[in-house]
Amino acid sequence: MSSIKYATMLESVRQTKPLVHHITNYVTVNDCANITLCIGASPVMSHAQEEVEEMVSHAGALVLNIGTLDPYQAESMLLAGHAANDGGIPVIVDPVGAGATRYRTDFMSHMINEMQISVIKGNAGEIGVLAGADAGVRGVDSGEVKGNLSTIAHDFALETGIITVISGATDIVSNGRHIITIENGHPMMGRISGTGCMATSIIASFASVHQDLAEASAVSLAAFGIAGEHAGAISTGPGSFKTLLFDQLSALTPAELARDAKIRKQ
Amino acid sequence: MSSIKYATMLESVRQTKPLVHHITNYVTVNDCANITLCIGASPVMSHAQEEVEEMVSHAGALVLNIGTLDPYQAESMLLAGHAANDGGIPVIVDPVGAGATRYRTDFMSHMINEMQISVIKGNAGEIGVLAGADAGVRGVDSGEVKGNLSTIAHDFALETGIITVISGATDIVSNGRHIITIENGHPMMGRISGTGCMATSIIASFASVHQDLAEASAVSLAAFGIAGEHAGAISTGPGSFKTLLFDQLSALTPAELARDAKIRKQ
Amino acid sequence: MSSIKYATMLESVRQTKPLVHHITNYVTVNDCANITLCIGASPVMSHAQEEVEEMVSHAGALVLNIGTLDPYQAESMLLAGHAANDGGIPVIVDPVGAGATRYRTDFMSHMINEMQISVIKGNAGEIGVLAGADAGVRGVDSGEVKGNLSTIAHDFALETGIITVISGATDIVSNGRHIITIENGHPMMGRISGTGCMATSIIASFASVHQDLAEASAVSLAAFGIAGEHAGAISTGPGSFKTLLFDQLSALTPAELARDAKIRKQ
Repeated sequence: MSSIKYATMLESVRQTKPLVHHITNYVTVNDCANITLCIGASPVMSHAQEEVEEMVSHAGALVLNIGTLDPYQAESMLLAGHAANDGGIPVIVDPVGAGATRYRTDFMSHMINEMQISVIKGNAGEIGVLAGADAGVRGVDSGEVKGNLSTIAHDFALETGIITVISGATDIVSNGRHIITIENGHPMMGRISGTGCMATSIIASFASVHQDLAEASAVSLAAFGIAGEHAGAISTGPGSFKTLLFDQLSALTPAELARDAKIRKQ
Repeated sequence: MSSIKYATMLESVRQTKPLVHHITNYVTVNDCANITLCIGASPVMSHAQEEVEEMVSHAGALVLNIGTLDPYQAESMLLAGHAANDGGIPVIVDPVGAGATRYRTDFMSHMINEMQISVIKGNAGEIGVLAGADAGVRGVDSGEVKGNLSTIAHDFALETGIITVISGATDIVSNGRHIITIENGHPMMGRISGTGCMATSIIASFASVHQDLAEASAVSLAAFGIAGEHAGAISTGPGSFKTLLFDQLSALTPAELARDAKIRKQ
Repeated sequence: MSSIKYATMLESVRQTKPLVHHITNYVTVNDCANITLCIGASPVMSHAQEEVEEMVSHAGALVLNIGTLDPYQAESMLLAGHAANDGGIPVIVDPVGAGATRYRTDFMSHMINEMQISVIKGNAGEIGVLAGADAGVRGVDSGEVKGNLSTIAHDFALETGIITVISGATDIVSNGRHIITIENGHPMMGRISGTGCMATSIIASFASVHQDLAEASAVSLAAFGIAGEHAGAISTGPGSFKTLLFDQLSALTPAELARDAKIRKQ
């Protein structure tokens, strides 16, 4: 994919302003709403079983994030996911804390079996656990993962048919055929709560307008990473970094994205 | 109403520090708490059916915001609303996303029938749908609305007896007799999540100390809009805008409010 | 305790990066997550009854904060608290709004009877009500409290065996034998939502690495208070104050903590 394409994709998000339906955790939900606005899409959060199917039917993409999963929300996610599948709407899943408790791991397995997930994005530990690798998760942080992350992403994507994204210093995207790496970002992104969740919201925004979801994921992570680089250069700590991350993603131009994205396909 | 009155109303909020009980969505709840503090009132959030009636009995006003409505919260809203009605406490309702799903639209109709709402504040689409106009809502954003917004607000207020507020570039308030317009604000207010919810919290703060709720609503929107103008002049994007919006509302003096409010009664 | 010890304790948090499991309110939960990261620990939020026992078993401390208590969450708190007790994991409780409604007061009494709480941290009204003093709470704010606060803290700690912390302009910590006062802080900390909750998260972070929980509490409040002093010196209002509070706590060095902590044992 040429870098011109990245610019076009960002322009498309901003012109289309796709609706992104979130069923997500209450820790970072506000950050997800604001980052979705900053990339140019329109967030809506809704979890009532009375309305999730109707809400998602109007959306460009659905985010399911299990950061504060409970049984009611789990049921809502299944309803919304099935409705999204029926409507051909991409489902972007963030398996926050999968591997930390049996409940989260089991629910993720259930979701993977029960619905068609389009993209899954987690840290190395979360994806590692779901892929059956020798991996650990502590709370919502990745523990040690044995094995090559690119191979884990590739094989998991191939086995499940889900575009697999492992976030980290180098982000990895695989569709089971290719590996894409993204080298944008800033260490400060690991020092605030919510950057993982925000990345997922951005992926959903791009997935609403671009059919190749591996490309959509890669460009999302590049855009977010560049905004992080800009914010990191002028912030004085994690509080101001987060404030500036919104400013910088909002200010990111298609031309800058095309120029500064460090995306490599292998 | 003379502009001197606006200053007095703001002074009154800051001296009385009214308690504002919120049953609201988990997306923008933190913003609502902080903006309530910035205007000079005291926020409390509580939704347990075991306590909402007792909590609201000590409050100056009740905010009911359906941004992430679910059946438990809906029931809590009805309990709290009835208790507020019994105690003569103003009920300020934000019909977030009414029109986007049948669930939200139906619950709003139910609330309008079942309790005495003092003020309803929504965007053009939300109020338009509830008023039976040819209007659309997409997620939590207003779609196109056919018809004159002032007429819609006026007629809805007249029919229901509820002070009706339509927020937008020009805010409109009607009590079914007069139309008040407020021209304060900044385009950046539409680029962050939560400004609508925050406006509702501010209206509830003023409604706690001032009996004429159309005036209270108008002054609230002017105060918030002026803070937005100030923040917009010095921010570098939506992140810093939001941070500065709190700073600027907190710093707003009664004299500035009286001088800069662009409120017009028709 | 010598001031060298404070430095060692902060270094220990940052090296150990303890996991702090929160069951907390949805108003300030994001602030709690971020402040936990800023002090150097790792936050996780989880309330599903299917997983709280497993999650807390991996944690260094458990935070139970009743700011938006409901029956489901109450039950989750009891499950997690008992599991923490079984595992010897400190339980840090924030009785937000105890005294404001019977529901909150009764649940706090129940928790105090049913589980072993390690530290309780509230404002003067909340602790006063629980201690049976002549005290009031309005929403989540302290009302007037009759009697000497140090005596109330001391006697409550002695009676219950719970390290008792009363936050305020002067913070008070008692283990039922000594009184420790902490004079750090900034008036701006009372003008934003969530500083009380954040203090509790910091206490839990230190409690994860330091056995003397009265000392852990005192050092936590000093660290947070110093960060508040630094933020207050450069902020332009409550919005920027909050942003800078994260920056400043994150930047606080062990040497600064040792030098600037105003902790006095009596």
